[in-house]
Amino acid sequence: MKIVIFGTGNVATVLGRKFKSAGHDILQVVGRNAKEASALAYELDTISTVYKSAIDKGADLYLIAVSDHAITSVIDNLYLPGKVMAHTAASVPKEVLKSVSSHYGVFYPLQSLRKEMKEIPEIPVFYEGNDDETKLMLGRLADSISPGNVVHADGDMRAKLHVAAVFVSNFTNHLYALAADYCRKEGIDFRQLQPLLEETATRIRDNAPGSVQTGPALRRDSETIQKHLALLKDHPQMKNLYLLLTESIQQMG
Amino acid sequence: MKIVIFGTGNVATVLGRKFKSAGHDILQVVGRNAKEASALAYELDTISTVYKSAIDKGADLYLIAVSDHAITSVIDNLYLPGKVMAHTAASVPKEVLKSVSSHYGVFYPLQSLRKEMKEIPEIPVFYEGNDDETKLMLGRLADSISPGNVVHADGDMRAKLHVAAVFVSNFTNHLYALAADYCRKEGIDFRQLQPLLEETATRIRDNAPGSVQTGPALRRDSETIQKHLALLKDHPQMKNLYLLLTESIQQMG
Repeated sequence: MKIVIFGTGNVATVLGRKFKSAGHDILQVVGRNAKEASALAYELDTISTVYKSAIDKGADLYLIAVSDHAITSVIDNLYLPGKVMAHTAASVPKEVLKSVSSHYGVFYPLQSLRKEMKEIPEIPVFYEGNDDETKLMLGRLADSISPGNVVHADGDMRAKLHVAAVFVSNFTNHLYALAADYCRKEGIDFRQLQPLLEETATRIRDNAPGSVQTGPALRRDSETIQKHLALLKDHPQMKNLYLLLTESIQQMG
Repeated sequence: MKIVIFGTGNVATVLGRKFKSAGHDILQVVGRNAKEASALAYELDTISTVYKSAIDKGADLYLIAVSDHAITSVIDNLYLPGKVMAHTAASVPKEVLKSVSSHYGVFYPLQSLRKEMKEIPEIPVFYEGNDDETKLMLGRLADSISPGNVVHADGDMRAKLHVAAVFVSNFTNHLYALAADYCRKEGIDFRQLQPLLEETATRIRDNAPGSVQTGPALRRDSETIQKHLALLKDHPQMKNLYLLLTESIQQMG
């Protein structure tokens, strides 16, 4: 497939690499910053441009892989009639691309992608398109980089997935960050917790998370809970969350 | 090392397996429930008893691997003078074993251990002892099952580690459970989130969690936050946590 990529950030970079290794032809990288665009183009063995007027018209697919709020400026004054267009944003409706082409959709990779990653993890892809041609093309592209891990999903489902993703990724990472901060202040090596937190994530491959819940909150061990709250007396933000999450576990359990 | 294990639960079972594969000699399994004790003894190629009077006096180490509140009943009327004793509980001081022997300590495995696990993950061990003999023996035992992953830690440090563990394991698992529940109710396949939540855990091997925080909370994307709160209107428990964790991220960021 011949692809033009808009964007030079984490999503554009990692998807670009995946497309390239799947054998697709990246015709061009389009970016606001000339240096970043040419750096990514160099890595993907292609050329770059900062000008909308210089966009290659020969691609099968134009993928806008930029942050949510930047989509508007990318599509401003962009017309690619007859071409298949897609963006990668969870929270943005596909219809935002209507002004650019009559074939538009979304190609949402449900993964935390970073340019720096050496090994690219599994990337479930949720795609949608406004017509069969768009659906077919985006579905094929998704299959080529994530075989067996591709789901057709409308905007409503994508928004709900994003809510769930915020809980299992943004919020858990915040708990990791609080714990790391606590360890640093208390003179403990946070890395000692790495095997535990990885096991907590991997064990739910085969176990519903509700069925493997443990800890003082679930067993209503008020002695340990009180001890922990005392240890958190100089960490008010953590103490507050400890109380609320303990209550939430007991409410669910 | 000759070891007698008290307990037949997750910790006793997994540690028993690790001790056995490290070449130690499990002399006996002591348990309240005869059937469970003999099942674990069978697996560990040894014998079992339910009677304190029948405990083998020939071991180097007596390890009490039972739940916190069960320790008291295990040590009631138990006297093993001159023997090295240890329990595996994060929140219980080593001194609770004083009445049993003059050599006592703690052998705390910082990991989520389950009998059902096929592959045993890395188990960082935090140990302490009231004298050199106890320290030396517990430290050696720890090294034999977790080389390079052993730390001498007093009760205060162990308690703090446990607080951090509650955040990175019990609380994150609760967030997984809430998200799984949400997915089930909204008709989404929770398994699609597995690669993301594993990557969120593994990426902090090489990145401080504070440095890889992302999401609508951190970028103060109030449009997305409002959209998510609307999607959570029938999930009050999650909506409440969404607000609090969003606030906490913004407070930290």
